[in-house]
Amino acid sequence: MKNVYSFKEGKGLGKALLGGKGANLAEMVGIGLNVPQGFTITTKTCHLFYEKGQKLWDELKQEVNEALANLEKETGKKFGDPTNPLLVSVRSGAPVSMPGMMDTILNLGLNDVSVQGLATKTNNPRFAYDCYRRFIQMFSNVVMGVSSSKFEAILDRVKEEKHYTTDLDLTEQDLKNIVVEFKELYKKELGEEFPQEPIQQLYLAIEAVFKSWNNPRAIVYRNLNDIPHNLGTAVNVQSMVFGNMGDKSGTGVAFTRNPANGDKQFFGEYLINAQGEDVVSGARTPKPIAALEQDQPEVYKEFVRIMQILEDHYRDMQDIEFTIEEGKLFILQTRSGKRTVTAAINIAVDMVEEGKISKEEAILRVDAKQLDQLLHPSFDPKALKEHKPLAKGLPASPGAASGRVYFTAEDVKAAKEQGVDAILVRLETSPEDIEGMISAVGILTSRGGMTSHAAVVARGMGKCCVAGCSDFKVDEENKVAYVGDLAIKEGDFLSIDGTTGNVYLGHIPTVDTIVSDKYAKFMSWVDEVRRLKVRANADTPKDAKQALNLGAEGIGLCRTEHMFFAEDRILEVRKMILSNTVEERQVALDKILGFQKQDFVDIFRVMQGLPVTVRLLDPPLHEFLPKTDAEMQVIAKEMNLTIEEIKRRAESLEEFNPMLGHRGCRLAVTFPEIYAMQVRAIILAALELKAEGIDVTPEIMIPLTVDKAEFTYVKNVLVKEIDAVFTEKGVTVPYTIGTMIETPRGALLADEIGSVADFFSFGTNDLTQMTYGFSRDDSHKFLDEYLAKGIFEKDPFQVLDQNGVGKLVEHAVKLGQVANPNIKLGICGEHGGEPNSVEFCHRTGLTYVSCSPFRVPIARLAAAQAAVKEKLQ
Amino acid sequence: MKNVYSFKEGKGLGKALLGGKGANLAEMVGIGLNVPQGFTITTKTCHLFYEKGQKLWDELKQEVNEALANLEKETGKKFGDPTNPLLVSVRSGAPVSMPGMMDTILNLGLNDVSVQGLATKTNNPRFAYDCYRRFIQMFSNVVMGVSSSKFEAILDRVKEEKHYTTDLDLTEQDLKNIVVEFKELYKKELGEEFPQEPIQQLYLAIEAVFKSWNNPRAIVYRNLNDIPHNLGTAVNVQSMVFGNMGDKSGTGVAFTRNPANGDKQFFGEYLINAQGEDVVSGARTPKPIAALEQDQPEVYKEFVRIMQILEDHYRDMQDIEFTIEEGKLFILQTRSGKRTVTAAINIAVDMVEEGKISKEEAILRVDAKQLDQLLHPSFDPKALKEHKPLAKGLPASPGAASGRVYFTAEDVKAAKEQGVDAILVRLETSPEDIEGMISAVGILTSRGGMTSHAAVVARGMGKCCVAGCSDFKVDEENKVAYVGDLAIKEGDFLSIDGTTGNVYLGHIPTVDTIVSDKYAKFMSWVDEVRRLKVRANADTPKDAKQALNLGAEGIGLCRTEHMFFAEDRILEVRKMILSNTVEERQVALDKILGFQKQDFVDIFRVMQGLPVTVRLLDPPLHEFLPKTDAEMQVIAKEMNLTIEEIKRRAESLEEFNPMLGHRGCRLAVTFPEIYAMQVRAIILAALELKAEGIDVTPEIMIPLTVDKAEFTYVKNVLVKEIDAVFTEKGVTVPYTIGTMIETPRGALLADEIGSVADFFSFGTNDLTQMTYGFSRDDSHKFLDEYLAKGIFEKDPFQVLDQNGVGKLVEHAVKLGQVANPNIKLGICGEHGGEPNSVEFCHRTGLTYVSCSPFRVPIARLAAAQAAVKEKLQ
Repeated sequence: MKNVYSFKEGKGLGKALLGGKGANLAEMVGIGLNVPQGFTITTKTCHLFYEKGQKLWDELKQEVNEALANLEKETGKKFGDPTNPLLVSVRSGAPVSMPGMMDTILNLGLNDVSVQGLATKTNNPRFAYDCYRRFIQMFSNVVMGVSSSKFEAILDRVKEEKHYTTDLDLTEQDLKNIVVEFKELYKKELGEEFPQEPIQQLYLAIEAVFKSWNNPRAIVYRNLNDIPHNLGTAVNVQSMVFGNMGDKSGTGVAFTRNPANGDKQFFGEYLINAQGEDVVSGARTPKPIAALEQDQPEVYKEFVRIMQILEDHYRDMQDIEFTIEEGKLFILQTRSGKRTVTAAINIAVDMVEEGKISKEEAILRVDAKQLDQLLHPSFDPKALKEHKPLAKGLPASPGAASGRVYFTAEDVKAAKEQGVDAILVRLETSPEDIEGMISAVGILTSRGGMTSHAAVVARGMGKCCVAGCSDFKVDEENKVAYVGDLAIKEGDFLSIDGTTGNVYLGHIPTVDTIVSDKYAKFMSWVDEVRRLKVRANADTPKDAKQALNLGAEGIGLCRTEHMFFAEDRILEVRKMILSNTVEERQVALDKILGFQKQDFVDIFRVMQGLPVTVRLLDPPLHEFLPKTDAEMQVIAKEMNLTIEEIKRRAESLEEFNPMLGHRGCRLAVTFPEIYAMQVRAIILAALELKAEGIDVTPEIMIPLTVDKAEFTYVKNVLVKEIDAVFTEKGVTVPYTIGTMIETPRGALLADEIGSVADFFSFGTNDLTQMTYGFSRDDSHKFLDEYLAKGIFEKDPFQVLDQNGVGKLVEHAVKLGQVANPNIKLGICGEHGGEPNSVEFCHRTGLTYVSCSPFRVPIARLAAAQAAVKEKLQ
Repeated sequence: MKNVYSFKEGKGLGKALLGGKGANLAEMVGIGLNVPQGFTITTKTCHLFYEKGQKLWDELKQEVNEALANLEKETGKKFGDPTNPLLVSVRSGAPVSMPGMMDTILNLGLNDVSVQGLATKTNNPRFAYDCYRRFIQMFSNVVMGVSSSKFEAILDRVKEEKHYTTDLDLTEQDLKNIVVEFKELYKKELGEEFPQEPIQQLYLAIEAVFKSWNNPRAIVYRNLNDIPHNLGTAVNVQSMVFGNMGDKSGTGVAFTRNPANGDKQFFGEYLINAQGEDVVSGARTPKPIAALEQDQPEVYKEFVRIMQILEDHYRDMQDIEFTIEEGKLFILQTRSGKRTVTAAINIAVDMVEEGKISKEEAILRVDAKQLDQLLHPSFDPKALKEHKPLAKGLPASPGAASGRVYFTAEDVKAAKEQGVDAILVRLETSPEDIEGMISAVGILTSRGGMTSHAAVVARGMGKCCVAGCSDFKVDEENKVAYVGDLAIKEGDFLSIDGTTGNVYLGHIPTVDTIVSDKYAKFMSWVDEVRRLKVRANADTPKDAKQALNLGAEGIGLCRTEHMFFAEDRILEVRKMILSNTVEERQVALDKILGFQKQDFVDIFRVMQGLPVTVRLLDPPLHEFLPKTDAEMQVIAKEMNLTIEEIKRRAESLEEFNPMLGHRGCRLAVTFPEIYAMQVRAIILAALELKAEGIDVTPEIMIPLTVDKAEFTYVKNVLVKEIDAVFTEKGVTVPYTIGTMIETPRGALLADEIGSVADFFSFGTNDLTQMTYGFSRDDSHKFLDEYLAKGIFEKDPFQVLDQNGVGKLVEHAVKLGQVANPNIKLGICGEHGGEPNSVEFCHRTGLTYVSCSPFRVPIARLAAAQAAVKEKLQ
């Protein structure tokens, strides 16, 4: 097995083997771009590395040595050479981009000898020692785990002693002294000398990069982005070029189109006399790329040409890293650029219209999960008029958010667990903050640009972010920020607009955003392509309307119990539950009937004949009972009972495991009159609409079925009541009766149940709970640990577990279709709006998915992508 | 389709079609016995009857009419004839015997005309009117639903007016008057005249018998005895013979061997001048069958001859009903006799030794479920010495019981629900009492013989029963019984011995019974035949010893949490759980380690190298926490915390659905140190025994696995700790690591999990809970209703649901064996001791079943029966 490929050999070997960065470098070398030479150690080697106990082995070292010898030949430089030393960068590069998540080491190859070679060669000793001190710090931190702050402290002390304001004030001699101090620090911390042998430096750096694949923030990032944990990373060793060799040097990042809105314009930033890390970390605020045209017109022209080549070559918007070394342009990296969903849609539509890609390709270009960013709220314009911006930063990630200020990731996380909307305010963010960023409703940083960590990560998450808001003087330690004299303390309300960069004091309510023409065009392509229908889960006319607006083609789950909770009816519901006799219960039910009928009339009217699946009462009855003494007082008086009696009756309904208790159609076996009332309400509503000229075919859904005999018993109760209504009214409507498949037994016996049911709707929430034996209410206590330890790749409540739960679904689909070739099949768990799960539903041959209204566009796109992928196979 | 078969046509058509009674009557006619002629309406007709809305239809009536005409021809009698009337009995007869559960009507055909014919023909008008009044009462009650007590009231009033002591004192005229009153009562109750047309009487009676298939007590009986609800009953119409025609007449029931102990001696009872119902109901206490030899020697001789013929013909002990009509013997019915398990074993062994049946047949002759009767306790002889019998009744069903007295079935049921052992004391029992009989630990009746309802049902249940204990004057209404002057009130302690018939006041402790040589021989045949191994669930050395004595071949489930509850260690367990740090927890665990190790040493020593499967900690941690303030005080003081802190920590462990919560191997993912301690204890114990020369191969079982990665994570924790112990001690022992399969997902992914597990043990309790979504702790609230409404045939927690849960087991077995051909497969839920479920385990190819020690003999026999049945197929 070959472990190491030079960039010249790598073209066409692909990202799976070489990682994204390595494959792109090889590709760029292949199309003749000026890329610093180097080689890639493969992702397969990474697996081997873990198998062999996380140490390099002799054969691998041999291959690295050979590749290095070739690199020395090509560059004419030598590792550790006193006159013309070779320096390299060592970077991670996974098959899927994980920006900033893994380790990078620059300037490797410097030691006490080669630093002089670099000084001689560049005729710039200050530069050489600056590189050396950076390298010592970076190596110590990234490879050896010594905290960077200890090095920063030395630097700060020197600057203070000398009354310097910036690093640029440091002289050659200062830097030489600092290098000595840094090496002493290294020895003190690690008990050994700083390694002088460049090849040892390289071996250690390669090990560090491989190990960084499994650092905690990388694991969190992969979980968040559905990236499998078993891909592994490649290691790229590349000869260094220097953006910090003076004013004709620089380094930058650029996008071939605007990653925030998709506009067809170059977009990027660069720093003069700097290395790449200065741009990415946000430590210095860079210049816009346009400034390069003035600074170095020739270089700018060349760069524009290369950007076009790269976009055309990859047929997608590119994110390009470049370095200018004394007027000479090097391309360090290119990759498909991260973008907001707005940009993704606009670029996809533009590229179709430019003839560069097909509609199908366009559909695959937008991450379905990101679509709900579009639906993220913006500030209510009326409320906004009453607020003046307090400050303005960079519009780093669109959307608006309002919440309380917290200054650490931990505090944000804790606030979220308390149900508090939190805005994370930081000087700048780093990968350590990632969990706080996930928990926050919005992010504000006082430093950093549009490509800073905060900006890139927030865009990826579709989270509102204002970056580089320098009016904010953030004191993280004391948990306070100052804008002028105004102190903004932990817990204060702040509202931020990531689309404009404006920041407001106080709480501003938000409203939904309006979507663009390009979005409409894109979604029309999506709807042309998909086979799966998309419905919404909606319990109210308002939700139903929302769902229709977002493209729903029906209601897949209308939960009737939500109607029971409304204030004007909960009292009757309680009376019904606490009744001692069927007669008492019937009196209460008769009152509830009127409410329920009107609920269905309203929803059916909104849906105008589109299919509506109504689920009969599902939760355990004790959920409806009074909790407070005051509520109990009311019901006791109404029912002429003592509070003690009410409490006693309520207690008798308590359960050890309500999830597995007396609920669903089990209620109908013990209290058939409840379902009879509900079905009467449904049919009366349908008859009322029929009189209005709207044809409704109610789909009546029995929850929690485990057995054919059980389903038949309940169905007979329903049919008897429906027939009675028809007889009373002298009119009929068509209807169907089906069931949720949400217990493993229901799925296992789908053939028997399917022979008497008109439809199945997979309730994958409960099915997941029972298949795993995980209570959703309790499992967070251990599920986080399962994810953190890499035992599970994904939370099965978020992404359908195709391996286990999915097997039951597939089994039930197969059996159900054999038993009843006309059976309608849907899914109405939360998975119905999760792209991977939607793709599964498509493959499994379901008729529709149903999800919350806001996820309808996601489901539509995911369904289309599934159809396109199927076609491509 | 032919619905009606005369007894002459029926031979060989089988029980499924004709029911047990009908098939036997046809069989007896076929072998030339003197059976009153008649015909059988089939069980298939019963299904049709239900399909057609529970009414007879014309074609069927036609067939009945024809069969009746033939019967008239054969008997020379005519329906409703004024001189020589045909009277018939109409009886149910299901494919499986359900004594007393369905309806019977005798003397049908009597009306105002034919009663005179009967009087003339028999020259006994008193007899004829006695028959007529009995018929009116029975028809009114059984067919038309009028309460018998209303008729009894008339009878009692007449007897009181005339100062009669028994029915026999009633004169012809009394009876004629009573008939008039009875008919008036009928008209008053039902608004129409008593039907005078015999054919109408017959139609109504046939309908009543078909309907009685689904009366509540029949359903309860079928549920209790695992009889499918879809068999249906046949109806037998048979010409009446009369045991109540004077002193040369009589009726009785006899067994060809003793049904209580299996002794090879005729055993039975008869009543002179009586009809069969008088024997069965226990209303009069009959004479032993031996008395017939004196009363009518010729008849006795003939009966003995026939009994031998029948036993030889059926090759089994027979239960025979006969009637003597004026010196002429008729056989009314024969069937395999119900018997105690002792009798079943003894008869089976005797018949093998008599050369009548094979060992395999013998094995099938004993109802495995009944085997635990053998293990029912008898009184502790020492304690018994201190008690003198208070009274003596008939030893109707063996075993001893001690409990509080209750006088109604409802009270017994309620007492049982409160956890109180109850003795049901009744004048006599009736089918309405069946649920109370199930709930009682023992039954005492003051009336009735060895074949009374109480005796027959109690023997079937294996429940201790003393019948006909006439010293008890039972006042059911006032809930008191008197023995002489002594009043025994509700709640008083009583102890009864169903083996001797002795009754004692007060509570007498019981001990296990010792089994006989024949039992040992029988079980040795059982063990020769079976393929399934039988292990026991045992957590203590005492249980382990018990299990060994009962024939267990290992421990299939040793629950370690039970060890945590012992008083001397629960405090350390609580400290461990309430620890805030890994270090604190480790200190507590180190203390628990010593206890656990000794537990395993003791158990391993008892088992002497037989396999022991140890399940690591399974329940949620909050189960171990203090509940009372006093307990909290102790732990708070120990841990130097406030009660509030203890409460707060305890609350943080509370769960909504603990069944689906943080338990099983999930504990090991979050607190690996707990399992590490347990496995260290197991291995240290095995090493200690190795030093003693006993080779133990611990089988370490991980509970609640859902995923291969999860299993692997936990297994690695265990292996690391085990290796550490081996290194410390410098000695090793072999061991295996396997898992419970008790979540649906575990079963679905059994191929993946099986590839890394040494064994599977199906935890069918939890698997049933999750597959159905039924919490065992809560489901009784609705499950009773499912059974009562016939939606479920059986409680899936008692009998393994082969249709649903069983599919998962079969699936997992198949996948597990492919992934790991050497995998050991067992079951350790409560189903492991239930015969149907054991048969399923045999068919599915498991290695062993494991059940509670007392069920081990049942499992052994059920496993043997499964093997025999397989061979027969």
